[in-house]
Amino acid sequence: MGKSITHKIIEQHLVSGEMVPGTEVGLRIDQTLTQDATGTMAWLQFEAIGIGEVRTDISVSYVDHNTLQMGFRNPDDHRYLRTVAAKSGAVFSPAGTGICHQLHLENFAKPGATLIGSDSHTPTAGGIGSMAMGAGGLSVALAMAGEAYFIPMPKVVKVHLTGELTGWAAGKDVILELLRRLTVKGGVGKVFEYGGPGVESLSVPDRATITNMGAELGATTSIFPSDAKTKDFLEKMGRGNDWIELVADEDAVFDEVIEINLSELEPMVAQPHMPDLVCKVKDLAGKKIDQCAIGSCTNSSYSDLKNTAQILSGKQTPPEVDLLISPGSKQVVKMLAREGLIEPLLDAGARVLECSCGPCIGMGGSPTSAGVSVRTFNRNFEGRSGTLDGQVYLASAQTAARLALEGEFTDPATWGPAPERVELPKDVPSIRDLFVFPPEDKSVVEILRGPNIVALEDFDELPQTVEAKVLLKVEDNITTDHILPAGAEITALRSNIPAISQYIFSRVDAEFVNRMKEHGTGVILGGENYGQGSSREHAALGPRHLGVKAVIVKSLARIHRANLVNFGILPLLLVDPSDYDKLSEGDDLVIPAGAMTPGGTIDITTASGKTVAVTNDLTKKELEIIQSGGLLNAVRNNQS
Amino acid sequence: MGKSITHKIIEQHLVSGEMVPGTEVGLRIDQTLTQDATGTMAWLQFEAIGIGEVRTDISVSYVDHNTLQMGFRNPDDHRYLRTVAAKSGAVFSPAGTGICHQLHLENFAKPGATLIGSDSHTPTAGGIGSMAMGAGGLSVALAMAGEAYFIPMPKVVKVHLTGELTGWAAGKDVILELLRRLTVKGGVGKVFEYGGPGVESLSVPDRATITNMGAELGATTSIFPSDAKTKDFLEKMGRGNDWIELVADEDAVFDEVIEINLSELEPMVAQPHMPDLVCKVKDLAGKKIDQCAIGSCTNSSYSDLKNTAQILSGKQTPPEVDLLISPGSKQVVKMLAREGLIEPLLDAGARVLECSCGPCIGMGGSPTSAGVSVRTFNRNFEGRSGTLDGQVYLASAQTAARLALEGEFTDPATWGPAPERVELPKDVPSIRDLFVFPPEDKSVVEILRGPNIVALEDFDELPQTVEAKVLLKVEDNITTDHILPAGAEITALRSNIPAISQYIFSRVDAEFVNRMKEHGTGVILGGENYGQGSSREHAALGPRHLGVKAVIVKSLARIHRANLVNFGILPLLLVDPSDYDKLSEGDDLVIPAGAMTPGGTIDITTASGKTVAVTNDLTKKELEIIQSGGLLNAVRNNQS
Repeated sequence: MGKSITHKIIEQHLVSGEMVPGTEVGLRIDQTLTQDATGTMAWLQFEAIGIGEVRTDISVSYVDHNTLQMGFRNPDDHRYLRTVAAKSGAVFSPAGTGICHQLHLENFAKPGATLIGSDSHTPTAGGIGSMAMGAGGLSVALAMAGEAYFIPMPKVVKVHLTGELTGWAAGKDVILELLRRLTVKGGVGKVFEYGGPGVESLSVPDRATITNMGAELGATTSIFPSDAKTKDFLEKMGRGNDWIELVADEDAVFDEVIEINLSELEPMVAQPHMPDLVCKVKDLAGKKIDQCAIGSCTNSSYSDLKNTAQILSGKQTPPEVDLLISPGSKQVVKMLAREGLIEPLLDAGARVLECSCGPCIGMGGSPTSAGVSVRTFNRNFEGRSGTLDGQVYLASAQTAARLALEGEFTDPATWGPAPERVELPKDVPSIRDLFVFPPEDKSVVEILRGPNIVALEDFDELPQTVEAKVLLKVEDNITTDHILPAGAEITALRSNIPAISQYIFSRVDAEFVNRMKEHGTGVILGGENYGQGSSREHAALGPRHLGVKAVIVKSLARIHRANLVNFGILPLLLVDPSDYDKLSEGDDLVIPAGAMTPGGTIDITTASGKTVAVTNDLTKKELEIIQSGGLLNAVRNNQS
Repeated sequence: MGKSITHKIIEQHLVSGEMVPGTEVGLRIDQTLTQDATGTMAWLQFEAIGIGEVRTDISVSYVDHNTLQMGFRNPDDHRYLRTVAAKSGAVFSPAGTGICHQLHLENFAKPGATLIGSDSHTPTAGGIGSMAMGAGGLSVALAMAGEAYFIPMPKVVKVHLTGELTGWAAGKDVILELLRRLTVKGGVGKVFEYGGPGVESLSVPDRATITNMGAELGATTSIFPSDAKTKDFLEKMGRGNDWIELVADEDAVFDEVIEINLSELEPMVAQPHMPDLVCKVKDLAGKKIDQCAIGSCTNSSYSDLKNTAQILSGKQTPPEVDLLISPGSKQVVKMLAREGLIEPLLDAGARVLECSCGPCIGMGGSPTSAGVSVRTFNRNFEGRSGTLDGQVYLASAQTAARLALEGEFTDPATWGPAPERVELPKDVPSIRDLFVFPPEDKSVVEILRGPNIVALEDFDELPQTVEAKVLLKVEDNITTDHILPAGAEITALRSNIPAISQYIFSRVDAEFVNRMKEHGTGVILGGENYGQGSSREHAALGPRHLGVKAVIVKSLARIHRANLVNFGILPLLLVDPSDYDKLSEGDDLVIPAGAMTPGGTIDITTASGKTVAVTNDLTKKELEIIQSGGLLNAVRNNQS
């Protein structure tokens, strides 16, 4: 029986388990990446493991999130990350060099390699055939220590592409179409593997945009074949040797097949406030636009920005539109500069920001009150832009650039000819010298910390019986942005769990933290897809610090579920989802945690005599991790 | 008797008073500039005056301070400034276009013209012979309304320049030398007028750096002649018609003459935490450097950044040094881009930020804890960088760029040949189209506000008898930072007096605002030098909003005294300073305000029968302003 790309890579990296969907498999990890928002904690955890040097082929520590530096916390974090990388044998990418996923794609990712990153958009590297997954910081720390990465064996969905993109349709519209069809829950437990005759027409940046935003499907990851386009890309990046051909066998069997005819796609946007609220651009004709923002790990490649410059060239945005551009890497800027494409951007009125995540994570660039902002990003969760009532639409770079000139949504049929699809130039400038490679002699390196960098606390074992109140009841599709908002002020505290915990659920219920302090322990009740979005493990670490013992939900997002396990919070699933309505904030619960078995059912009782059955999808190992108080405790127990 | 440039300009603009140093003169103002941190309040005040359109030759509203946009407040402010400018006949410069002083120098400033700006570094335009002064927001609003600007007639100091800069010495070192000699108090009540044979060797950007940082001397302003260099500069900016020759008469008489031989200058820095703590760079040899920052209104010109690129070209900063570059304007970036000078900056490791004030005002780019940061800026006050224990050194662009490569202070004698002094290219690209000029038909313009932009309230006349409690008693040397703290959170509220007033004295006495709310009116009792420091008028507007009717003090700082008058708060001086001890917080006072005369004495009585004599140093006009409820009321009364 033929194999998919996914099965080929997993098979080559399998260290435990069998490739049966839903059962746990352990994978050897070739590469890791961390960024500075999640990375300081991941590196503190790596230090806590105590093995000295990283054991991966390569581990890269990027700084791209907290680059504004409003005070000492961010630069202290950067300095810590630079020195701990040098000490530990990792590569360091300084602030301003670019966005981790763009840089990793350009400089380090390899077809056929496994990569995990402490950022949910790590699947970007799937654009060149890497099996790249977002993970919690602790999982990345363990992978750096040479431990396997455990996931439920995913189902493999083939996305069979036919036809070719035409006109103003772009790679972004492929993933918007999938989100429209499948919703933000449609990819849970699945790898989306692209194939079919349409693949070869898609450039590597288009492919990377698609695998990047596959994260919004809730997918384990997304992956493209490694083909002639991939070879050309890697050769131009000076990495021809990293190329291998990697395609699914002709007779590969998939769990599911989805067909997309690229020729039928037209420009689309995701409407506020969810990436799956997708409609056609033309359907919004007449709606005024206040801001456009081009950049982020989704759409900040050379081709995105060259197209942008071509669209803007010789024209100017109306004064009502604020246009922000954040290039993905210095390599991108260098290529634009060599071709004289910086000036047209400036002349059009664009504000060219540093190469970093920027407005995508609310790190500046917030829109006006109730402002309509068209962004080339991957997420438009409510408030993520920094403006609570901001109306964020997600689109391709071509669409966003064109709409910036229009000042309002218009029908793409009126836009005239689309810019040509961009190929990389023959001579692509290297930025390899900007990475800081670790020294031969690491003994001379001193790890520098700052007053905001607080070592990880020790967590207690889970008690046999958890007695706690429901201290928060939330709806479906709660994101990790709901649990712990981003933005400069809060994100600056990512190295300091006691401090950042004060913001847990602060935009959902300002009194939650006070209630947790009052009661010392508590339980959160949630709906479907609890914990979707960003991989930030602080959304588990913070609640754990406050005393949250369990979340009881209808269903869980993959990475957040893993983070809950890693930090010893019980992820309980309602056997009957309608029991959600039986429980209320303030209910006193008794959870017989000691009676739990993997996949087994227990009865939670309330003080008022109600009974609710909950189950779990934990493996034996995961249950042991939770019972021991979290993964670090479990690893230490195993070592001792 | 011959005239100085200063006297020529003042004479041409004199609308009241005589040119006798120390006496008040009223000047007709040709141009104004505002920026977005002080500008929203200035424009709200202009609206409150109610005259419709600006009456200056040109008024420009720049956005350059709060450009990070962490939330809706900044972009809402920008939108308000754009629409109120269009409605009022002013020019608007959008965020990202550049720094107000750099842009004004390049695009609008004129030799011989008067300019006031709501920013203390407005004297930058003195580099081309404009008489350019920093002023409070209300003064700028009144100037926009066609009212005169009143200042004490300054003494005129000639700075006689001989010789020529050599090696690594730069224009910045001229002003650092003056600060070394005269200190930050050495320029109070004076205009520094540059002359002598050394002038012609200095480029316009060098001259502008010197007049810009003349603000740190406490000077009224600084000014250079308008000569052939000025003519060449203006012609290259497409403004040859704005040039006039403007030099001091051969036999001009000055109040004071200072000699500087440019040939003797060498690279200098101002050490933490004051611009006058100047020493030679070589004296610090061996001190490690963590960060260099090039930019700000002081040193972000084309010549500064071209020299920077030349110094960095083909080299790389060590990983320990974070190098930030904030260009002064898009025009500067366009010139760099055309000459291929962006790439060397990136390759050297520099982070190229948006064209804005940026790190100079602590708006990002903060150094590490206790980090040593060499900056081309004009101020190194403690904490201004955003890092309270940051060690900020002020230097020229050439020095900062070179030190970024060195990684530590070294002797400039070891630096090798200095880069050539830069001339503007023959074809300077225009960015005129990026300014938003007001429309012909202003009736169609709608002024857009946001929830944080609150119109200025009307203030009542001062009652004949003020009956109020002493609601705060403070010590000597209270600063406007004590009265209203700075910081991103509070500064974002500068357009909202009711909101920002909640922070009045918040770090001195957290209950003060509540007491004011309880009682509705109140009096503040202070010691010597009350209100020293920053000029922020919110430190008077906030107390006035809360209901403060009078401050009773031993002595007052000059600018805060003017702000109290402008917003109708009685500045009362204890006749016998020891009476300070007689009064306590909570005392009920009766102040016979109606009986006050300029310089006269009145008796304040307390409910417990104590009597305290107070006087004032108010002019008749100032007393009338206070009695009418503040300057805006007084102006409106005069108009009606």
